[in-house]
Amino acid sequence: MNGYDITAEFGEDPEAAIADSAKRFGNWNRWGADDALGTVNHLDAATRAAAAALVRRGDSFSLSLPFDTDGPQFGWKRRVNPVHTMTSTGMETAEQMGLPHGLSVADDVVFMPLQCSTQWDGLGHVFDHGVAWNGRVAREVVTGEGDQVTGIENLAAPVVGRGVLLDVGRALGEDGELPDGCPITSADLEETIRRQGDSSQVRRGDIVLVRTGQLTRVRRRLAAGEGWGGYAGGPAPGLSFETAGWLQGTEIAAVATDTWGVEVRPNEWPGAMQPLHQVALPHIGLLLGEMWDLDALAADCATDGVYEFFLSAQPLPFTHAVGSPVNPVAVK
Amino acid sequence: MNGYDITAEFGEDPEAAIADSAKRFGNWNRWGADDALGTVNHLDAATRAAAAALVRRGDSFSLSLPFDTDGPQFGWKRRVNPVHTMTSTGMETAEQMGLPHGLSVADDVVFMPLQCSTQWDGLGHVFDHGVAWNGRVAREVVTGEGDQVTGIENLAAPVVGRGVLLDVGRALGEDGELPDGCPITSADLEETIRRQGDSSQVRRGDIVLVRTGQLTRVRRRLAAGEGWGGYAGGPAPGLSFETAGWLQGTEIAAVATDTWGVEVRPNEWPGAMQPLHQVALPHIGLLLGEMWDLDALAADCATDGVYEFFLSAQPLPFTHAVGSPVNPVAVK
Amino acid sequence: MNGYDITAEFGEDPEAAIADSAKRFGNWNRWGADDALGTVNHLDAATRAAAAALVRRGDSFSLSLPFDTDGPQFGWKRRVNPVHTMTSTGMETAEQMGLPHGLSVADDVVFMPLQCSTQWDGLGHVFDHGVAWNGRVAREVVTGEGDQVTGIENLAAPVVGRGVLLDVGRALGEDGELPDGCPITSADLEETIRRQGDSSQVRRGDIVLVRTGQLTRVRRRLAAGEGWGGYAGGPAPGLSFETAGWLQGTEIAAVATDTWGVEVRPNEWPGAMQPLHQVALPHIGLLLGEMWDLDALAADCATDGVYEFFLSAQPLPFTHAVGSPVNPVAVK
Amino acid sequence: MNGYDITAEFGEDPEAAIADSAKRFGNWNRWGADDALGTVNHLDAATRAAAAALVRRGDSFSLSLPFDTDGPQFGWKRRVNPVHTMTSTGMETAEQMGLPHGLSVADDVVFMPLQCSTQWDGLGHVFDHGVAWNGRVAREVVTGEGDQVTGIENLAAPVVGRGVLLDVGRALGEDGELPDGCPITSADLEETIRRQGDSSQVRRGDIVLVRTGQLTRVRRRLAAGEGWGGYAGGPAPGLSFETAGWLQGTEIAAVATDTWGVEVRPNEWPGAMQPLHQVALPHIGLLLGEMWDLDALAADCATDGVYEFFLSAQPLPFTHAVGSPVNPVAVK
Repeated sequence: MNGYDITAEFGEDPEAAIADSAKRFGNWNRWGADDALGTVNHLDAATRAAAAALVRRGDSFSLSLPFDTDGPQFGWKRRVNPVHTMTSTGMETAEQMGLPHGLSVADDVVFMPLQCSTQWDGLGHVFDHGVAWNGRVAREVVTGEGDQVTGIENLAAPVVGRGVLLDVGRALGEDGELPDGCPITSADLEETIRRQGDSSQVRRGDIVLVRTGQLTRVRRRLAAGEGWGGYAGGPAPGLSFETAGWLQGTEIAAVATDTWGVEVRPNEWPGAMQPLHQVALPHIGLLLGEMWDLDALAADCATDGVYEFFLSAQPLPFTHAVGSPVNPVAVK
Repeated sequence: MNGYDITAEFGEDPEAAIADSAKRFGNWNRWGADDALGTVNHLDAATRAAAAALVRRGDSFSLSLPFDTDGPQFGWKRRVNPVHTMTSTGMETAEQMGLPHGLSVADDVVFMPLQCSTQWDGLGHVFDHGVAWNGRVAREVVTGEGDQVTGIENLAAPVVGRGVLLDVGRALGEDGELPDGCPITSADLEETIRRQGDSSQVRRGDIVLVRTGQLTRVRRRLAAGEGWGGYAGGPAPGLSFETAGWLQGTEIAAVATDTWGVEVRPNEWPGAMQPLHQVALPHIGLLLGEMWDLDALAADCATDGVYEFFLSAQPLPFTHAVGSPVNPVAVK
Repeated sequence: MNGYDITAEFGEDPEAAIADSAKRFGNWNRWGADDALGTVNHLDAATRAAAAALVRRGDSFSLSLPFDTDGPQFGWKRRVNPVHTMTSTGMETAEQMGLPHGLSVADDVVFMPLQCSTQWDGLGHVFDHGVAWNGRVAREVVTGEGDQVTGIENLAAPVVGRGVLLDVGRALGEDGELPDGCPITSADLEETIRRQGDSSQVRRGDIVLVRTGQLTRVRRRLAAGEGWGGYAGGPAPGLSFETAGWLQGTEIAAVATDTWGVEVRPNEWPGAMQPLHQVALPHIGLLLGEMWDLDALAADCATDGVYEFFLSAQPLPFTHAVGSPVNPVAVK
Repeated sequence: MNGYDITAEFGEDPEAAIADSAKRFGNWNRWGADDALGTVNHLDAATRAAAAALVRRGDSFSLSLPFDTDGPQFGWKRRVNPVHTMTSTGMETAEQMGLPHGLSVADDVVFMPLQCSTQWDGLGHVFDHGVAWNGRVAREVVTGEGDQVTGIENLAAPVVGRGVLLDVGRALGEDGELPDGCPITSADLEETIRRQGDSSQVRRGDIVLVRTGQLTRVRRRLAAGEGWGGYAGGPAPGLSFETAGWLQGTEIAAVATDTWGVEVRPNEWPGAMQPLHQVALPHIGLLLGEMWDLDALAADCATDGVYEFFLSAQPLPFTHAVGSPVNPVAVK
């Protein structure tokens, strides 16, 4: 690993590379002019039914980070951490609350960016030269009132299916972790599958989880009282721009990582910014999951050698939202 | 239905009835002094594995209402509807955002009470005379920093298992709906099971979904432009206080309804306020789900006669929260 | 009053009337190409010094409505009422807070639309055919990051000067109130000045407060438990579109009313929406104040016959905001 | 300066020192059992009228920091910086907004802790052994619904009067700044008054502004791209605990500083936390202002030698709030 040079294959200009990949891997109109699901269309009922059959022991794993003020955000682009406050607590008595027969109630509220912690990027999250998924004009469909066509509410029901963990950190890294800045190529993904064995074969409609190990490393920092460091946007291992073809060709429904931004950071061209997003969301229509905590699941997979599972990763249906917090639960 | 008189069995004083039911049906220390899961303990891995085997066709149903400003809340106890706003949209150009190669990004934030729409009440939501689940002192465990023992984050992984729909509205109501103010007794639940058939037998660890039909009625109001009316706290069909014994004895993990507050409203004693909550949460340790949209699922169950399914109803792990929005997804 | 017909003077087409008034009364470039203050430029130091000399007794009057969940908003355009919650309270002990020597602390947060209650509309709040104050292109200056040129922070220092109350309700109404739907013309404003006497002569740089009496009427509703009714956007007395020339020609710094929207509602042309705003903000550059509580001040002015005072009405400097909550304080 | 040793006069135990100062300087019942204003009672109409007479040139100075995401907070106690978002912008067209005659509108919302930037601490912000201002029981008056007796809304009208700047940084510091950790004693305040001259004599009802110069220093950090450092809670110059007697004896209405917490930090006893607050708020009933930007005003005062002015520092009347953001405006 680490040796991959994007410019050898894709040239020096990220804008041209994006345009070329968009053309080669774009899925516009594949599911009709009105489509609001993108590659989640690959995740059909039969696929979901087959995924349920993967459940053996019934153990469940939450893949979510905590949602609280101690999270990784530091205010960039007004992305702060969630602020959770109480409107009433266990400290008020029934008398103070004006309630009968000794009843008292605690209630709470939250303020949060939808992309603050474990999340899905919706199809309206990223645009290429002002164009959104399926060729729509971004300024017409994602306005101050949100995403009026591909809002995350469209994904309320379907994002439940087969999950496959590709633990690249364990397969190809050192001590289970890839270093920051390390790009993961499609060859690396395939090699990981080969080493992990049959249960990690990737199929149409899958939700693919790529573990880099970065979060494991960050967790050590946190335990040492050193904070999140650059987890939210700084250097990180992640998918190479080169994986666009693999992500599209495998016909997966979604991909998620244990990093802030799916892609390798810094991005592979100097001055570039999340070029794979610019192909994946508006052109492939691929749902991207970020900041997923894959460690406990990965440890279990390493133990039993089974890298496939039933995965419930439905977003919360915020109307017209371009993303959603999610608590993905894997069941093995 | 409708003829049930709570005072005949439980007397005139709700406070005494609550105390008596708490004593008879309380589960304190059943799962140890440190327990933070309550009846979700009933939902073990074997139960979950068996639930996965219920998936036949792979069709998935979201049981969530939309999360937006047009929701049922009207500000009572500062419970407002979610306010979703954009920090950037598809209207900004790459140049305006200072981003390279034609990239632009839409982002969003939300402010919401955790109990504003489809939700779980956590174990720290309700207290009986200042006492919380498992006998804890409410003022010590649920403070301004939230629920420090039974916060909803404890339920991030396990709330995935067998769902059973008891469509009481369809079984015992008129045109599929129970009238507001109609109490549902344990006999009604049993009769519904009897009429629906074997697939709706309730077992240990189940998540029981009770459809009253009220939401169907409210949806007609909404379609007619008449607003939510009293959906959030006004008169509604719902569980009788009398069901406490059934809820505990069946060893279910959780119960959810298509109404604001699970219980029949107005509550069965004059001046009483959610007395079943006061037994269910602090004494039984029973997770309560509110404002679940069961209509599409119910129509499907009525069609194929199968009232059991795999249900993913994991909350979002807001640290120390006493409730959580949830998008429950049923898979048949 | 009440007899004024806008179409007699301005024709049947509001769009043409707006264009015509914009042309006649526009102040573009009056204060240079970089201006971010609009008519607040009229409020200079000399004017402010003269205003301070009006203070006689030293009595102060807050002109602000309360900021809380019981306010007039009902969610239109996501304008909700403020939600104020505590992060800690007087109920936590020093021990619970981990604080020494018996110290404990209460803290709080708020979520609110900036236009939820007593407020200033900033210059970037309203546009005419995509054009903002001083002829700027709206889509370039007021983006998802807010108003990058005329943000309310520009008005942090200057909005302190001479206030003049024009109590049109008392002067020309019945029992001190104008009926809903009643337009106030410039002739009505002048007649009010004439009846009130010399202290209400309007001068360059003034902040003019127009009391219609609607809020007095709404307060009776509130006292009777009938809620705010249509205060936030429904029928109301208010300025006629015809006043644009008066507002510009008098060279006042700002105008504020005791109503939701300054202008008469319904607006004077069928189907029109706040046409005076469309002239006042982008063309005249006039600061507009809404939902000001003028009743206590008006009672005092009626008693002593003095309608001028020192007025501190500085907004909170939210960076790039297009409006701000304000607690205007008048000192007599 | 710098040589003051608190233990010489007040002993080794902060808890005893607090109790002693509370006894000596407490104002309980001075303004009756129902009082909700504390020392703001000193700021009467005559005082306010005299203050207005100080205005000479009419120049106004905002003493507020910006309110935005780039502020000094870092999430401690869930105090984050304000998050301001747009619900609509200048980018939407009239057609997109469904508005007639070319009208379009920008609107915005904010989420913020009330103590995030330039602010007043209300009387319900701090407690001494569970006791609030005027001897009230903290757990009864400041609950999850906020401060039900001394909420900041009580201070909506009166906090307008004479401001006096004590520029201790300029008078006694080096290059206009006191070092972090430097305590300001009452002798230092008196020496500053002596050096500044007659216009800075402190009188009953004054709002005293103490400039330490720390914010000037922090601004250099910000300009250098080094961030706020420890401005929000780290080491800072500030009032010595010893000033409690001076603050009470001078009968001032309020005191504000250019620092996060008024008091010297670290506090003067090892392990102590804001001991002066514990006397000032619950016992003296003294309004405390924090994070005020005094630099422009201080430069002006240094130039003309006039350290008194009219000051409008009214809070926003958030119902039941224990603090408020404020944009204080000084007029000279």
